[in-house]
Amino acid sequence: MNTNESLAFIGLGSMGAPMARNLLGVFPQLVVYNRNPERATPLVQAGASLAASPAQAVQPGGVVVTMVANDAALKEVTLGAQGFAPTLGAGGLHISMSTVSPETSRLLAQEHARHGSLFVSAPVFGRPEAAAAKKLWIVQSGDAGAKARAEPVLRALGQGIHDFGEEPGAANVVKLSGNFVILSAVEAMGEALALAEKNGVDRNALAAFWGETIFGCPIYQNYSKLLAQRQYEPAGFKLELGLKDVRLVREVAEHATLPMPLVDLLHERLLTSLAKGRGGIDWTGIELVTAEAGGLR
Amino acid sequence: MNTNESLAFIGLGSMGAPMARNLLGVFPQLVVYNRNPERATPLVQAGASLAASPAQAVQPGGVVVTMVANDAALKEVTLGAQGFAPTLGAGGLHISMSTVSPETSRLLAQEHARHGSLFVSAPVFGRPEAAAAKKLWIVQSGDAGAKARAEPVLRALGQGIHDFGEEPGAANVVKLSGNFVILSAVEAMGEALALAEKNGVDRNALAAFWGETIFGCPIYQNYSKLLAQRQYEPAGFKLELGLKDVRLVREVAEHATLPMPLVDLLHERLLTSLAKGRGGIDWTGIELVTAEAGGLR
Amino acid sequence: MNTNESLAFIGLGSMGAPMARNLLGVFPQLVVYNRNPERATPLVQAGASLAASPAQAVQPGGVVVTMVANDAALKEVTLGAQGFAPTLGAGGLHISMSTVSPETSRLLAQEHARHGSLFVSAPVFGRPEAAAAKKLWIVQSGDAGAKARAEPVLRALGQGIHDFGEEPGAANVVKLSGNFVILSAVEAMGEALALAEKNGVDRNALAAFWGETIFGCPIYQNYSKLLAQRQYEPAGFKLELGLKDVRLVREVAEHATLPMPLVDLLHERLLTSLAKGRGGIDWTGIELVTAEAGGLR
Amino acid sequence: MNTNESLAFIGLGSMGAPMARNLLGVFPQLVVYNRNPERATPLVQAGASLAASPAQAVQPGGVVVTMVANDAALKEVTLGAQGFAPTLGAGGLHISMSTVSPETSRLLAQEHARHGSLFVSAPVFGRPEAAAAKKLWIVQSGDAGAKARAEPVLRALGQGIHDFGEEPGAANVVKLSGNFVILSAVEAMGEALALAEKNGVDRNALAAFWGETIFGCPIYQNYSKLLAQRQYEPAGFKLELGLKDVRLVREVAEHATLPMPLVDLLHERLLTSLAKGRGGIDWTGIELVTAEAGGLR
Repeated sequence: MNTNESLAFIGLGSMGAPMARNLLGVFPQLVVYNRNPERATPLVQAGASLAASPAQAVQPGGVVVTMVANDAALKEVTLGAQGFAPTLGAGGLHISMSTVSPETSRLLAQEHARHGSLFVSAPVFGRPEAAAAKKLWIVQSGDAGAKARAEPVLRALGQGIHDFGEEPGAANVVKLSGNFVILSAVEAMGEALALAEKNGVDRNALAAFWGETIFGCPIYQNYSKLLAQRQYEPAGFKLELGLKDVRLVREVAEHATLPMPLVDLLHERLLTSLAKGRGGIDWTGIELVTAEAGGLR
Repeated sequence: MNTNESLAFIGLGSMGAPMARNLLGVFPQLVVYNRNPERATPLVQAGASLAASPAQAVQPGGVVVTMVANDAALKEVTLGAQGFAPTLGAGGLHISMSTVSPETSRLLAQEHARHGSLFVSAPVFGRPEAAAAKKLWIVQSGDAGAKARAEPVLRALGQGIHDFGEEPGAANVVKLSGNFVILSAVEAMGEALALAEKNGVDRNALAAFWGETIFGCPIYQNYSKLLAQRQYEPAGFKLELGLKDVRLVREVAEHATLPMPLVDLLHERLLTSLAKGRGGIDWTGIELVTAEAGGLR
Repeated sequence: MNTNESLAFIGLGSMGAPMARNLLGVFPQLVVYNRNPERATPLVQAGASLAASPAQAVQPGGVVVTMVANDAALKEVTLGAQGFAPTLGAGGLHISMSTVSPETSRLLAQEHARHGSLFVSAPVFGRPEAAAAKKLWIVQSGDAGAKARAEPVLRALGQGIHDFGEEPGAANVVKLSGNFVILSAVEAMGEALALAEKNGVDRNALAAFWGETIFGCPIYQNYSKLLAQRQYEPAGFKLELGLKDVRLVREVAEHATLPMPLVDLLHERLLTSLAKGRGGIDWTGIELVTAEAGGLR
Repeated sequence: MNTNESLAFIGLGSMGAPMARNLLGVFPQLVVYNRNPERATPLVQAGASLAASPAQAVQPGGVVVTMVANDAALKEVTLGAQGFAPTLGAGGLHISMSTVSPETSRLLAQEHARHGSLFVSAPVFGRPEAAAAKKLWIVQSGDAGAKARAEPVLRALGQGIHDFGEEPGAANVVKLSGNFVILSAVEAMGEALALAEKNGVDRNALAAFWGETIFGCPIYQNYSKLLAQRQYEPAGFKLELGLKDVRLVREVAEHATLPMPLVDLLHERLLTSLAKGRGGIDWTGIELVTAEAGGLR
């Protein structure tokens, strides 16, 4: 798309706000919408327009980016009473960047097709700091032409775009399974650190060893440090959001008739944490379940 | 220790042989022992001496390195009928580099103390190629003076020495829990790749994505590739050896009164693989259990 | 209710058909409905009336019993386009005997209340033979007056009614958790029999021992025999129906924020079985997953 | 054997003491031994002789019954420095009734064979009250002639003898897997009761329902009541003893190359309980792990 076209952005949460800010730098005609409009104030002050509803945010035949909390919110802004799908209409493009189920992407692609619009699924890896720094990793799937049109938008947001074909749900499978692999590493490190602690081995020394040798990549380096120090607040990514994602993985696995016992184990850790009132701490805090089971707390 | 002192090396398996070769370059007075003496031929041709028994390999008050298959073999060469412990005697040093239980290290440290010898536990991370290239990561624990004496030996074998204090079993806990964390990553990737496959996502594309973005470290890069292609032969590290290590982790966890459900899950994968006759393939091949459960094979 | 009142019965599957037959003996004015009307022929020949839709089956202010396949079917016959809820209306009573989620019961109780009808949840334990023999165990929950009115109906179907209070979903929780406890016994016996077999102990002798001594109740006696002989066809209760029930237990547990690892284990067994094409055998056939993992098949 | 022959009984714990008392009624020449001789006082007052060591308790060619705490204790009284195996000698018979591993039975059968003695493995099901009331269920395996000779002894102790052939370890496999199946039922009921409680269903009503209907056998009737009321003290069977047994099942399963995930789950429950200081409560108390995970305590 052209940088002087209008572009709509819906969802100004902790990820969406910095993403919209980056898009505003490239697309001065940015129109934003958020359920709670106060969140839009800084962007409006920086030059963005504020729409009163999802439908009013989009231009017929235009491009809209969504970054909302979950499947229900995404369906609401797209297909709900004030949803933008009918207005977007013929020639429109929806770039969906939220972490949602592949089923939802498939449904939206179908619904948009009825109106003559196209759909690209483009979820991201990275925390708010990465979003602000245009350092997101973006995975995409959808119609080839739609992806070509989306490219300038996505380039303004991330450090790389990885393509997974034309099936609209594929990028969501990649996103969800990525979060699963990350949280599996957290669980493994948590159990290993507890074993070390119970044997008198220093947690910080072990975490540092991993990051300097066999696991020299940021996820291990950063998370092992948080785990070693049991520093779970403030949350970088809330445990209850991790549970939401793992629930989606369970749904996808069920739908695919694939048993995933490690997913079930993570789910058990997360649900236990929630039952103990720890939904608001960082998701690395699932480690406390291991610590408690071993009598360490 | 001084490089013109005699040094004994016991255990010339796929790891021990290249390690002994590297030591011979630094310690020309190297004496080697292997249960099957034929394995020693290349080293003898390169200048090493061959001993007829563990006891005959060591010098009183000297230094001996062991790199054998398991706890039983280590106890046999050290404390068995022809074991070297009595000969090593006062002032001796045993550098134990095998992957064994912390209990065995504690036992050996005690037994050596009775003879006036010291003990350093120094297991390694790395495959035979890394051993040959002096690229092993070494973790150590034991008496401070003993570690100082061992340093020239360990420097000749690896790219870094990480210290975990004076408790002789600590380094073994670090080694075993490291293998556990690695195999956990394999299980997580295996389940995620199966989910991707069942959703029509290309396995190789997903594996490549991980290695290029969120998991940019060799363990993920190498193992995800093997997993994506289901290339489990020839084995880099045999599944049955992985099972041996996971059994040791279970023993350590039991002894520490620490439930480790992820260890139990890996054990179930490994034992299933063994029951199906797959003990000789690479340990990444635990993924086949997931594939079969999902009807992919 | 009075035995010469009209009574509607919806759902003539393997359980519903013998139940309707028993009701016809007591309530000669029985009106039946089934999606596939051919299933009603024997009942019509015996004197029942056949309705063309759920709505046409019921009398305003009357009583209707439902026994259908799942939550979706129950919502359809009750609240769908031809659903009976509006017709049933003021003073009506819905006795819901299907195995469904407590959430569905709570929803239906609310919807019926809007029309002035009452709702009793009354799922059953027992196979088709028990249904035919009026030997079902019935668990109930709901409004006290509604349960009093339902009593003659339930007495005509089972050998005992167990009450779990006024909350409409309670009886469903009891039913679902009952199926979970039963299937847990199957899994335990399956693992134990495999261990016995691998140690040369006769499967049939072990099964007989349990039934004659420590587990002298029909579930163990009957299921252990099927397991010992691996006689999974014809199915008494299809594995895919067991999976449906275990899915419901997972939903209820998630909703209650209660981790239930044994439920997850059973789900993994069932889903594996389904992926291998065994959804149509008896649910005791989850044992084959254990047998295969141990290399026994 | 003849009732006026001498008979030795070793191990006067909570099970052994009432068993010895019953044997004394039939075999007046009973000689007893216990590590702590004070436990023997009531039996000596009732007419039994007290031996100073296992070896002194037995007659050459005689019969000895053992009922001790674990594998180590059994090996000690049989093969230790004061063990009875050499004295028992040619024509002797050892009836081993402790809960031990099949491996230990196989070892003892071999060792006794070297001295010309025979060995019968005959572990029991039942608590101390059942032992006192001669209501034990006895499972046996071993040499046919040896079992014939043992019969009068076993008949004096239990309400039934179930035979599992000539392999000495078979009866131990049956005993251990029986305890596993029982504890699986406890875990299942514990999870189901927690689900009920979280949904407002009365725990006692649910437990009573099971015992009166689908699970009308003493294990469910008794254990469900303890679980419903969370009455875990005083212990009928200590949790730490249950852990010992489940460890043995894990060993047997490992040796048989059979993955048993439900055993691993029970082990995790038991080990967690131990880490929390609950080794001394009744083994039904594993339920507290579920309750805590769900935030119920």
